Amino acid sequence: MQSIPESLHKLIDEFTHFPGVGRKTAQRLAFHVLKNSREKAELLAKSIRDVKEKINYCSQCHNISEEDPCGICTDPKRDRSVLCVVEDAMDVIAIEKTSEYRGLYHVLGGLLSPLDGVGPDALNISGIENRLEDVEEVILATNPSVEGETTAHYLTKLLKSKDVNVSRLARGIPVGSDVEYIDEATLARALEGRVTV
Amino acid sequence: MQSIPESLHKLIDEFTHFPGVGRKTAQRLAFHVLKNSREKAELLAKSIRDVKEKINYCSQCHNISEEDPCGICTDPKRDRSVLCVVEDAMDVIAIEKTSEYRGLYHVLGGLLSPLDGVGPDALNISGIENRLEDVEEVILATNPSVEGETTAHYLTKLLKSKDVNVSRLARGIPVGSDVEYIDEATLARALEGRVTV
Repeated sequence: MQSIPESLHKLIDEFTHFPGVGRKTAQRLAFHVLKNSREKAELLAKSIRDVKEKINYCSQCHNISEEDPCGICTDPKRDRSVLCVVEDAMDVIAIEKTSEYRGLYHVLGGLLSPLDGVGPDALNISGIENRLEDVEEVILATNPSVEGETTAHYLTKLLKSKDVNVSRLARGIPVGSDVEYIDEATLARALEGRVTV
Repeated sequence: MQSIPESLHKLIDEFTHFPGVGRKTAQRLAFHVLKNSREKAELLAKSIRDVKEKINYCSQCHNISEEDPCGICTDPKRDRSVLCVVEDAMDVIAIEKTSEYRGLYHVLGGLLSPLDGVGPDALNISGIENRLEDVEEVILATNPSVEGETTAHYLTKLLKSKDVNVSRLARGIPVGSDVEYIDEATLARALEGRVTV
């Protein structure tokens, strides 16, 4: 369109590739860049480059990190007897926010999905077995979805022969929710896993 | 937080400054950059720089443009007898999308807002008077808000002494809407401006 300069058009296009960003939102984001000072735009461009240049994967837990091994793996205050297996780095952030967990992590980098052609070799699964020496418990914290359950099932079978306890995140009603509006599957799980008071 | 690398943290911070982007969305956007290839991140960083470096304001209509004067001002097919006054470049894009308007534009770069200290000198208002030579009609296309109406009122008074017709965008019910749910003010305007069929 004649009314949008070429370079702005390109930036809008770039933003439409972001998750959850449509044409209209992309336009608003691009105009924000345009309205900002040159210094701020420079800072944003630098941050984008830095993220790709500085961040790598920790060779032990496969979490994203600027150092290798990462800060969690090298932290002496962490409990090395517990290993929490998650899908990706965002799950690590979510669990860290609870301040409840003091063990180590193992990031799979995805979930098993045979229909999409994602088998065990595409994930960081083989690395787990080499990390079990001091581990007493493995917590499988994959999503309660079909792929998450499949992955958890596969890992449970894999770890059966090893000398570790395997646990799974509790399923039940979320805090602050309303029993009336909870779906049957979740409510059934909550009943099944009820806790004596 | 230890679980988020410093450079990723910075990028998330940058994204939270965007309009309509909260912490969670910023995190999703930053992770999208991280998951993308280095080439794509490089392309995005370049686009951001380009927008600030290449885009300037047209000295005639004050719209954003890579050339001066802009493509609309220099287009010989444009009707030079009509001038449409808008708040900013996004309004130009919106009006261009209708393919209904073939005249020129005049971008104010804001709206009068005495409470926020925005007076006529802060806007591109004085430039209008120098552009009226061939103009027969000035369309005031500012928003139907308090600031938009104030600005339109100011411009109407300013243009009164000049030999031009001044018009305002029609107010009424939006296409595809439901009379039942339209607010009173809009419905009153629609009744007032009713058209004989």
